[in-house]
Amino acid sequence: MKRPASFEKLLTILRKLPSVGPKMSERMAFRILRMTEEEIKDFIETLQDAHKEVRPCVICGHWDDSSPCRICSDETRDKTVLCVVENSQDVQAVGRIRDFNGVYHVLGGVLSPLEGIGPQDIQIASLMKRLEGEPIVEVILALNSDVEGETTAQYLAKQITFLSIKVQSNGRPEGIRITRPAQGLPAGGELEYMDELTLTRAFEGRREFDRN
Amino acid sequence: MKRPASFEKLLTILRKLPSVGPKMSERMAFRILRMTEEEIKDFIETLQDAHKEVRPCVICGHWDDSSPCRICSDETRDKTVLCVVENSQDVQAVGRIRDFNGVYHVLGGVLSPLEGIGPQDIQIASLMKRLEGEPIVEVILALNSDVEGETTAQYLAKQITFLSIKVQSNGRPEGIRITRPAQGLPAGGELEYMDELTLTRAFEGRREFDRN
Repeated sequence: MKRPASFEKLLTILRKLPSVGPKMSERMAFRILRMTEEEIKDFIETLQDAHKEVRPCVICGHWDDSSPCRICSDETRDKTVLCVVENSQDVQAVGRIRDFNGVYHVLGGVLSPLEGIGPQDIQIASLMKRLEGEPIVEVILALNSDVEGETTAQYLAKQITFLSIKVQSNGRPEGIRITRPAQGLPAGGELEYMDELTLTRAFEGRREFDRN
Repeated sequence: MKRPASFEKLLTILRKLPSVGPKMSERMAFRILRMTEEEIKDFIETLQDAHKEVRPCVICGHWDDSSPCRICSDETRDKTVLCVVENSQDVQAVGRIRDFNGVYHVLGGVLSPLEGIGPQDIQIASLMKRLEGEPIVEVILALNSDVEGETTAQYLAKQITFLSIKVQSNGRPEGIRITRPAQGLPAGGELEYMDELTLTRAFEGRREFDRN
């Protein structure tokens, strides 16, 4: 007995969501079918509203309901310290650290030769443009401590080092300091899963990037 | 930094889906936000179509896009053998057994005193009505082999035994046979996760219900 076409299609689109396999899509589908008229209306309106309102910030790439986002628009923030992260979830994670009051740059991914993701596929050009044009004195490379994160950090450090020399001769004699969160991130760990204490320690103990 | 209200609401409704926790709702939300206009339109239309078209069958309770469902409407099916299952997913599972050509009755749940689910909360009254009015000679109680499934099977067996005596005196001398799938269902296992072979063996080896 084949399922109705509309049911099969529902399963197909639910499986496009991350971590949703055949069994889970089925359970989710039945939950959706069992919704009352009012519930499904609210569910759909919520999807539409969020999709319409929440978008990436033109400056930093963080997803918010205004662009520039509320972080970039916040006059009380220290615009000289820039934290580079992989994605918008990481902005939320770092945002939980009370001591950090800088701004962000969301790469929207990390370098991954295996998956064919190169420098042009993530927000590196816009990062370099910001570092050149904005009065930034420190870049914190807060990337995951896995292979892709490390590779991306190494790549960015080199690029920023070159840029630092350039800005030093163009009226910013101190150049741009490159730091990384230190202790706290276990090997292979993903930033967005870390607790506040672990992240706070990692940010407190951040060290100079090893340029060798 | 608080998230946008529309984003928070999206997280809230996604967490209402089964097995979706805080982290997963976040990943799902970002996948949804990143959808193109066309993708989100298709996603929403699919939800609407399925919710509108797929509904429970008035006879057996199985979710299909017609009511009576295609199984109940199928003239080639043996209407004298009725398979009682907990939910519509189980109909799909049993439907994979090539040898089974009977019809179904979906309870829509199982008895659970701890969760306050009693006989009036699941489709038992309609089952009894069918057994009395339709020419059914065998009921297969294909419920999960966990505590709730066992309890429900015991309860149903008693009710059907009483009804069998009644129909025997009302022109169905053979009464109603009560069977259960035998070997194959491991203790505590859930029916909808079983493979075809396990289910086939369980149906082949089904035995009389122990009425003590």
